[in-house]
Amino acid sequence: MCEHCGCQDRKKEIELERHILSHNEEIAARNREHFRKKGIKVLNLISAPGSGKTSLLEATIDALKDKIPLAVIEGDPETERDAERIRKKGVPVVQVTTGGACHLDALQVHRAFHQLEGNHFKLLFIENVGNLLCPSAFDLGEDLRVVLVSVPEGSDKPAKYPAAFFKAQVFLITKIDLLPYFDFDLEETRELALKINPQIKILPISSKTGEGLEEWLKLLEGLVSA
Amino acid sequence: MCEHCGCQDRKKEIELERHILSHNEEIAARNREHFRKKGIKVLNLISAPGSGKTSLLEATIDALKDKIPLAVIEGDPETERDAERIRKKGVPVVQVTTGGACHLDALQVHRAFHQLEGNHFKLLFIENVGNLLCPSAFDLGEDLRVVLVSVPEGSDKPAKYPAAFFKAQVFLITKIDLLPYFDFDLEETRELALKINPQIKILPISSKTGEGLEEWLKLLEGLVSA
Repeated sequence: MCEHCGCQDRKKEIELERHILSHNEEIAARNREHFRKKGIKVLNLISAPGSGKTSLLEATIDALKDKIPLAVIEGDPETERDAERIRKKGVPVVQVTTGGACHLDALQVHRAFHQLEGNHFKLLFIENVGNLLCPSAFDLGEDLRVVLVSVPEGSDKPAKYPAAFFKAQVFLITKIDLLPYFDFDLEETRELALKINPQIKILPISSKTGEGLEEWLKLLEGLVSA
Repeated sequence: MCEHCGCQDRKKEIELERHILSHNEEIAARNREHFRKKGIKVLNLISAPGSGKTSLLEATIDALKDKIPLAVIEGDPETERDAERIRKKGVPVVQVTTGGACHLDALQVHRAFHQLEGNHFKLLFIENVGNLLCPSAFDLGEDLRVVLVSVPEGSDKPAKYPAAFFKAQVFLITKIDLLPYFDFDLEETRELALKINPQIKILPISSKTGEGLEEWLKLLEGLVSA
């Protein structure tokens, strides 16, 4: 081992990461089977902090809660703030605070799901920790993985954070009401995302004005009735 | 070990994390000594993706490069895009791509610093990977740690991501030209940040309009002449 490089540590780290990820995949597979048996469809929302995941959930709840029974699992490094916002909408919610960890894992979702027992719901949203890197590596057992980038973040994000786009089925470009104020190139973002994942469905939306939400809601209704 | 909990893994993970962090601290201490001997002041910029770190660097370079010789280390999970933006400004820059890892470490900075050898500079900016969680745990040997939150991200960020604020000396609230379009409470953010770190210096700025930049530049000039 050379003086500076820490290569032995790095080797141990990689081995342990592999172990943790394969253990997580086992639990995620069990979650998926569990959700399937209960007839519940599950979404995993991944984005940087402040991309508008909670605002999207609020708008989605307002539009859907009389049609589809919903529930939410909120992941945050600290605080119950997001769960409080959802609770005000009258939807069952469990807050998972990770104590600073940068992603949710399948076991945390398994436990949170048990805390939701006794509530009737057909569609479960998991709002992951605000982070565009770490959550990508952890399958939670979801049916649909959704990645969000907001207009203020810039159109280059798919190139810089490819892992988040590689395994997602849906890419929401959020806060499009702000397009007039930012140098955000919708076409560039589309092309970059499709280069990484040609199957990804791209929806530009604004939770504030409601633009583009119709297609998002249709997608959710389709998922539940599938 | 219980069926679901992975507690043995977690214990191994914690041990290894401690080992990696203490190894990182040793290298960071060496970096710090190295920078001190060369008379170079170093800043570590931490924020979520899209908070405007690169735009701030561009504005800072435009204002300072004729007064203070500068250099930049760019950290990104993928791509050379940010380094290209800085290179256009005529400042020496090294891009570190972490291959998806969520933070820079002291060893990567040590190596990048050697790549900058042969250039004359007094002030080195390290733009960390866009992430408000992981980079907080890794000392790079910097003199000043700066955390950035942009107006579109929301004023609750210090409460949700306390670790980023705890060890920073400066908190830049960026993109304040957007305050009229967002429900961002400057006073709330100030209070939340000061609760975590009563010594933190808070500067609201806009790299676009130049508002607040004067105080930021004065701070940098003070650091270099200290």
